[in-house]
Amino acid sequence: MRTTVGIVGGGPAGLLLARLLHNAGIDCVVLESRDRSYVEGRQRAGILEQGTVEVLRECGAGARMDREGLVHEGIELRFDRRAHRVDFPALTGGRTVMVYAQTEVVKDLIALRLADNAPLLFEARVSGISGADTDQPVVHFTHQGREHTLTCDYVVGCDGFHGVARAAVPEAVRRTYERTYPYSWLGVLADVPPSCDELIYAHSPRGFALHSMRSRTVSRLYLQVPNGADPADWPDERVWDELDQRFAVDGDWTLERGPITAKSVLPMRSFVTEPMRYGRVFLAGDAAHIVPPTGAKGLNLAVADVVVLARALVHRYATGATDLLDAYSDTCLRRVWRAEHFSYSMTTTLHTDPEQSEFDTRLQLAQLDRIASATTAAAELAENYTGLPIG
Amino acid sequence: MRTTVGIVGGGPAGLLLARLLHNAGIDCVVLESRDRSYVEGRQRAGILEQGTVEVLRECGAGARMDREGLVHEGIELRFDRRAHRVDFPALTGGRTVMVYAQTEVVKDLIALRLADNAPLLFEARVSGISGADTDQPVVHFTHQGREHTLTCDYVVGCDGFHGVARAAVPEAVRRTYERTYPYSWLGVLADVPPSCDELIYAHSPRGFALHSMRSRTVSRLYLQVPNGADPADWPDERVWDELDQRFAVDGDWTLERGPITAKSVLPMRSFVTEPMRYGRVFLAGDAAHIVPPTGAKGLNLAVADVVVLARALVHRYATGATDLLDAYSDTCLRRVWRAEHFSYSMTTTLHTDPEQSEFDTRLQLAQLDRIASATTAAAELAENYTGLPIG
Repeated sequence: MRTTVGIVGGGPAGLLLARLLHNAGIDCVVLESRDRSYVEGRQRAGILEQGTVEVLRECGAGARMDREGLVHEGIELRFDRRAHRVDFPALTGGRTVMVYAQTEVVKDLIALRLADNAPLLFEARVSGISGADTDQPVVHFTHQGREHTLTCDYVVGCDGFHGVARAAVPEAVRRTYERTYPYSWLGVLADVPPSCDELIYAHSPRGFALHSMRSRTVSRLYLQVPNGADPADWPDERVWDELDQRFAVDGDWTLERGPITAKSVLPMRSFVTEPMRYGRVFLAGDAAHIVPPTGAKGLNLAVADVVVLARALVHRYATGATDLLDAYSDTCLRRVWRAEHFSYSMTTTLHTDPEQSEFDTRLQLAQLDRIASATTAAAELAENYTGLPIG
Repeated sequence: MRTTVGIVGGGPAGLLLARLLHNAGIDCVVLESRDRSYVEGRQRAGILEQGTVEVLRECGAGARMDREGLVHEGIELRFDRRAHRVDFPALTGGRTVMVYAQTEVVKDLIALRLADNAPLLFEARVSGISGADTDQPVVHFTHQGREHTLTCDYVVGCDGFHGVARAAVPEAVRRTYERTYPYSWLGVLADVPPSCDELIYAHSPRGFALHSMRSRTVSRLYLQVPNGADPADWPDERVWDELDQRFAVDGDWTLERGPITAKSVLPMRSFVTEPMRYGRVFLAGDAAHIVPPTGAKGLNLAVADVVVLARALVHRYATGATDLLDAYSDTCLRRVWRAEHFSYSMTTTLHTDPEQSEFDTRLQLAQLDRIASATTAAAELAENYTGLPIG
């Protein structure tokens, strides 16, 4: 097989890149190791930055998002039994975010790709990439019981943190940066209308909690748990009781309860690999960087990467010039590190480290109080949350 | 002896409080344990927030400051061999800071107090405060070889971190919060004109460095050293060589060298005691809270405390109402915790923790890059640095 751009991984990064290239008339093949129903069922992030929303719209993938997604104009912070709303449009000159689950974005992009009769292979397991430093890198994969090769001008690894593409960057040039956290999230999906129109990020002496939603009828809730926690130790009643305590404020507020339909533990990690390009192999999204989920940056970073990469590839095929491709890694990494800092900062301001001192807790509360009382500090949060410019 | 307000400690907090009360016609006595020349020779901070400058002017203690002090309209950040200026007036609607050494403020306030023939006793060693929870608290002290008592309506402890006043708050109600840091500052005074018109805060792989000045002819420089470092291990040549490396940027810049006239190691600590008032005893300045020096907040916090306290005492004697006195601790602590957070944040963003990972270093650089590229982040620094409103 031969194509212009070989894309390893059919998650949101790979599928969006394929869409952007297809629209520009550049051939590509997407190889996804899982089957379609698995890919469409993966529960992941749910907050789209304004820039992400605009990209999806502009590439023709925004119709259902605009019908079913929920525009959010702010978030609520809770701490010290107080509630404070951060008003995004007022603080950022009109920017908002969209609540629309990553899994729905993936469904939309798959449907478009298939409607275009453009190559998207499920259950295509990539074993490796060779010739990264040649003009014709090759992706090796098995599909329907047979081994195949895909010869490309360029290969893009969008196969996530556990993918194989990262190994195409030789260890001698690869540098990795990492941080783990002494807590995880227990995430639950519940068939109950959200108790609040917007997300609630709660700091409490018992640990962090997040109230979110998937739709007008499905709530998505998270609570900080120790690493290694077992969902089996969290019967529904315990989850609701704990959430009640963590969201408690002075004044009226009720967390509505309903049947919990899914429960899982999400570990937290910060991770960056540099460079994001070696020869003719590029990395995008989780293949290159992971953030803890507190700032809702993971999916949006992946989108930004492939937007930068699509522009660079379009420029390359329009003009022959590789300057934007050569700049890809640096261009992305600056924004990646910004998001790494923001995600780290949101995470460590809102969670309770089991080893933190009373002094550390007071610093967290002082920073939350600052955000609640000073426009400048609130704007810094709002700008980062709604998303910085891409590229 | 009897007075209305007994002030323990003749540093800037105690002396300024005495000035503010004297101007309002409220009697007070200042007891300072050291002699005058020692107090006037102590090298301490040198950056006055705009609010501090205004307070000194309004109470008649600003004449020499306005003649000799240097108005600074910004600071420079150095990191990754880049230099970036933070423009205070542009970011804060016109605010600036003043470089005028604390020791000069102290000299000016002592001169005014003595010119007023108002009681200021040097070498008056306070052993304790009794009757904090009565209407007539008493300060016990020795002076010129004899034991004395000073009976007061109110007592204010301005005697610093190592003072005795804090013990007037019973342990059962006192809470303390503390953090230490794995580094100290080596501070040097040098008889050489400053190499730059403004302060330079430098992040470097070798650790933090700060370029500051006392006047147009005297430079004040600091460099991060391990805790327990001995100034004897830092001959002048080593100091200058190390500073050269830490301030290095791409492009022309020369650190001027000159005779070093003083060298000392300053430990770093964050500390807060709560409440800042018990009965009729109040704590102000370092007696109640310590910050690491990176954000230049220590002296300015002390000034804010005594401004709040003077207003409350004036209100009390004008109206009989104690509401402002009752609110004193909460009013001050909110601003104190804000400054604790800012000082911690400046410190940990700019210094190299010997245990920090490469990931941590990249987060520091990402945050400095954000300040250098986004008005919102720069404004958050500038607002905090030039000082938040008092009270």
